Amino acid sequence: MKIVIDAMGGDNAPKAVVEGAVLALQDINDEIILVGDEDRIGVELLDFRGKYDPERLTIKHASEVITNDEAPVKAIRSKKDSSMVVGINMVKNGEADLFISAGSTGALMAGGLFILGRIQGIDRPAITSVYPILGSRPSLLVDAGANSECKPNNLLEFAVMGSIYMEKVIGIKNPRVGLVNIGSEETKGSTLTKAAYELIDKSNVNFVGNVEARDVPKGACDVIVCDGFVGNVILKLTEGLAWNILKYVKQKFTQGLKAKMGAALLANKLMEIKGDFDYSEYGGAPILGVKGPIVKMHGSSSANGVKNTIIKAIPYAENNVVQIIQNSVEELEEITISE
Amino acid sequence: MKIVIDAMGGDNAPKAVVEGAVLALQDINDEIILVGDEDRIGVELLDFRGKYDPERLTIKHASEVITNDEAPVKAIRSKKDSSMVVGINMVKNGEADLFISAGSTGALMAGGLFILGRIQGIDRPAITSVYPILGSRPSLLVDAGANSECKPNNLLEFAVMGSIYMEKVIGIKNPRVGLVNIGSEETKGSTLTKAAYELIDKSNVNFVGNVEARDVPKGACDVIVCDGFVGNVILKLTEGLAWNILKYVKQKFTQGLKAKMGAALLANKLMEIKGDFDYSEYGGAPILGVKGPIVKMHGSSSANGVKNTIIKAIPYAENNVVQIIQNSVEELEEITISE
Repeated sequence: MKIVIDAMGGDNAPKAVVEGAVLALQDINDEIILVGDEDRIGVELLDFRGKYDPERLTIKHASEVITNDEAPVKAIRSKKDSSMVVGINMVKNGEADLFISAGSTGALMAGGLFILGRIQGIDRPAITSVYPILGSRPSLLVDAGANSECKPNNLLEFAVMGSIYMEKVIGIKNPRVGLVNIGSEETKGSTLTKAAYELIDKSNVNFVGNVEARDVPKGACDVIVCDGFVGNVILKLTEGLAWNILKYVKQKFTQGLKAKMGAALLANKLMEIKGDFDYSEYGGAPILGVKGPIVKMHGSSSANGVKNTIIKAIPYAENNVVQIIQNSVEELEEITISE
Repeated sequence: MKIVIDAMGGDNAPKAVVEGAVLALQDINDEIILVGDEDRIGVELLDFRGKYDPERLTIKHASEVITNDEAPVKAIRSKKDSSMVVGINMVKNGEADLFISAGSTGALMAGGLFILGRIQGIDRPAITSVYPILGSRPSLLVDAGANSECKPNNLLEFAVMGSIYMEKVIGIKNPRVGLVNIGSEETKGSTLTKAAYELIDKSNVNFVGNVEARDVPKGACDVIVCDGFVGNVILKLTEGLAWNILKYVKQKFTQGLKAKMGAALLANKLMEIKGDFDYSEYGGAPILGVKGPIVKMHGSSSANGVKNTIIKAIPYAENNVVQIIQNSVEELEEITISE
């Protein structure tokens, strides 16, 4: 399998990406192509001479970079020689099987849509996000922000695509799919969630019904289904609140000598807790619904985070998940037409 | 001023409510009427004989109670002699100036709507919630769940009503009003939030613009404006996540002798942090947009929480906030008509 990686994406690019690729090669038999500025990538690779097989780690030059500040659609359309556009085109042309990037999520989605196109029958592809559950395996949030306005069939698509991904890529058997709602009863919620409930309930996914937001961080479901507005609120509120609580705890724990002594004894535990919130260690999150496997990794991924993302993303291509989603479209059509 | 309190609402009723009322009377010169089962209230009052002025603390009998499990509208319509319906009717008939209850939020909203009615010109009254900001004064979340589907003018109403309440009742000068959105730029968001942005921007409130969910727990604004679906997600996710993080921290801190020793030294601090999340200590939250002051207090309020809520709610009636909102309606109409 050939994995193409955007060497220019993320806060620590290209250094962390190059090192992560070298580390990943030690654990996998696949081939990695680093796409981006060949001079800058080459310089980083010098540090690892003799530590990787040059036949399995090559460079594909791309002269441009898409940044997080750029309007995604415009950037994808105008920067034809950007690492992202070149990389996604390699997947499209069959030169690679999987594209991974820590760059702009919006641009990745736009690139997937314009270069690969939607899977036929999927109305709205989704950005997903790994959602950390303290003390347990993470859930997958679909949609994390691509579609701020949704129709019921979009939420059905998110449920089915998320379920397939969690089963075939993450290896969770019969993943529990929950619909974010403002009450747990079937009849609760907005026009959208009530209609989506009925559709998802008819599908083949393991639907656990409505999930209230208070139960999301407790791991109430493996696939968290919601529209992109709500998904974005869940994701960002979680980040902001966790950061704020930990900062506040730290502040409280350094008030007074007694507290400082206690905090010193708990230093390891505090580091562990902080680590549990480090999204980059959980691997990447797929763009679902486009005609090829694209994985977004966290912008602040360390080399180790990059390595983890690469290794964990392989089954997305290897297990033909895009094809499985394509095959599931018929099921979706039967459900929505019968409504 | 006459304050009527639902003695039968909340997890600790009537005991905590009765005790809270007695405590409040020591700090205020107003009159309190406890509405509910006179025998049960009377028994609780026996404990405080001689500790309160019986001319300022009286009982109004009501034979029924509305529970959290009941469908709000049906409960308000059928239980005419419930403590909630009797209490709200006293405000309507001028027998009392303010109604406070720790009972079902949905029933309080339904009671406000059916008994008092909407303030003329307000399309959608809102349930609000006190939103705790660690290390700072709390914000007010509007809407916290009454209106899961909103139009732009509803969000404008929430902004104006929330701003008036925070200024006139909580005493925050020129409160900062923020619109929850999935990006901070003016042009970001859904059709709803884009249109609401324009309307709120034209109003007289101190509009700080779009606020991303990650900045809400950091106190980015005093009035958090959103539709009831998003508001409910914010509120419940915050509760669930904070509870989960603190539980996890506690679990980590009791693993191993060294950690246990550290935790023992930090016991006070940990209690303080837990206390900061105790919503019941922050006072109640108003139902905004109905023709009379109704305040919801937290269901698990202790006697001290009840006392705080009573004292802090008085300006809601005393400062004629309902009338001020009524007067602001003209301003709202000018903004929405000019669109």
